[in-house]
Amino acid sequence: MDNLKELRIRNIEETKKKIKESVGFDDFIVQAINNIEEIKKVSNILVKRLREWYELYNPEFSREVSDHSKFVELILANKDKKIKESMGAELSKEDLNAIKELAKEAESLYKFNEKQEEYLKKIMEKNCPNITAVAGFLIGAKLIELAGRLKRLVLFPSSTVQILGAEKALFRHMKTGAKCPRHGVIVQHPLIASAPDSEHGKRARALADKILLAAKLDYFKGEFLGDKLRKELEEKFR
Amino acid sequence: MDNLKELRIRNIEETKKKIKESVGFDDFIVQAINNIEEIKKVSNILVKRLREWYELYNPEFSREVSDHSKFVELILANKDKKIKESMGAELSKEDLNAIKELAKEAESLYKFNEKQEEYLKKIMEKNCPNITAVAGFLIGAKLIELAGRLKRLVLFPSSTVQILGAEKALFRHMKTGAKCPRHGVIVQHPLIASAPDSEHGKRARALADKILLAAKLDYFKGEFLGDKLRKELEEKFR
Repeated sequence: MDNLKELRIRNIEETKKKIKESVGFDDFIVQAINNIEEIKKVSNILVKRLREWYELYNPEFSREVSDHSKFVELILANKDKKIKESMGAELSKEDLNAIKELAKEAESLYKFNEKQEEYLKKIMEKNCPNITAVAGFLIGAKLIELAGRLKRLVLFPSSTVQILGAEKALFRHMKTGAKCPRHGVIVQHPLIASAPDSEHGKRARALADKILLAAKLDYFKGEFLGDKLRKELEEKFR
Repeated sequence: MDNLKELRIRNIEETKKKIKESVGFDDFIVQAINNIEEIKKVSNILVKRLREWYELYNPEFSREVSDHSKFVELILANKDKKIKESMGAELSKEDLNAIKELAKEAESLYKFNEKQEEYLKKIMEKNCPNITAVAGFLIGAKLIELAGRLKRLVLFPSSTVQILGAEKALFRHMKTGAKCPRHGVIVQHPLIASAPDSEHGKRARALADKILLAAKLDYFKGEFLGDKLRKELEEKFR
């Protein structure tokens, strides 16, 4: 009986240790990219609120500056000139201050997002230098997040890497016979985003190939060939 | 021709002026209560992210403190002791700092929310002292927001005020014959929230009556009877 009890305790200890050791750099990558996405969503919500509120005061200015972060910046810098014949109401200083407080919150989130991106970039460059060089740290991190871990990403065929993040379109394709997606998150890569639509499929295929190669180099701790791989791609599609 | 042109310009001027003058205190109440609700949502999203991230480091502590704002507070005060046999990984200082940054954002939103509530309370007490005394500034503001303006709220029958905010349940009732809702947002009022379930309907009815009376006093700039009305309610349901 005592032996059994001891065995149980040791077992729990062992399991806890294993859980502890199972936390790897992948986890931080996943957390960071999730943070970045969530913060973008949240700051958008806040700026939309800010605009609605602010438009009581100066609707013309809000309509003029369509970029969210620029809008926040200009308000906080007091560069939000009100035209003379504005439709907006005159606001008390207190009301205006309250509006600015909200703008400050949005600004603070923008800044935090920048910091998060730096943090993610650092982890990516340290642990996945090849992926980062080929795909960029944001797309690379998103691919790892979608795969779950670097190890799983490496085991995918390149055609899967190509459409990671387009699961919805893929299943629609399989179910209804709609067009098969040509790319998932890698569409944001400059090589694809800047190309004409007819080139997208070809480029996505080539890019996914290289990213997978880079991922394998990173996973098996191979040498750094990222820059070379990226140049090959760039030359191919010049 | 010239006359027509001038007429047009004057017309636009006139309309702009009317739009400008149409902004009333109701609008600020609506904005503030919307802000408060949105910020609550947003800070919840952030703290959920924070927890997921933090649990790589100290899962036991996160599970122990279930209150979101308490959790943030303790982390920022460095009172998040890690037990010796924790399942969480050891984290570098940089990783921990990044986590704390997120906690700071959440804290900042909590503080902003407090400020917003103060701001709303001030507007409510100034413009709707009777509603505020009877319903409280949060419920009062929410009722005005749901009605659109104080003017519209005043025109509702008391039975509508009673179930404002329970539209979904009301339409379910009308469509499927499910139970009719007994109260909308006023359910949060201490007089109802603290009562046994069987009393809810009766109290909601009485409360809605008094709120409507208070709203009319506020709208027609009558005298301040809010405290008296509240006391009557409290005595009735002692």
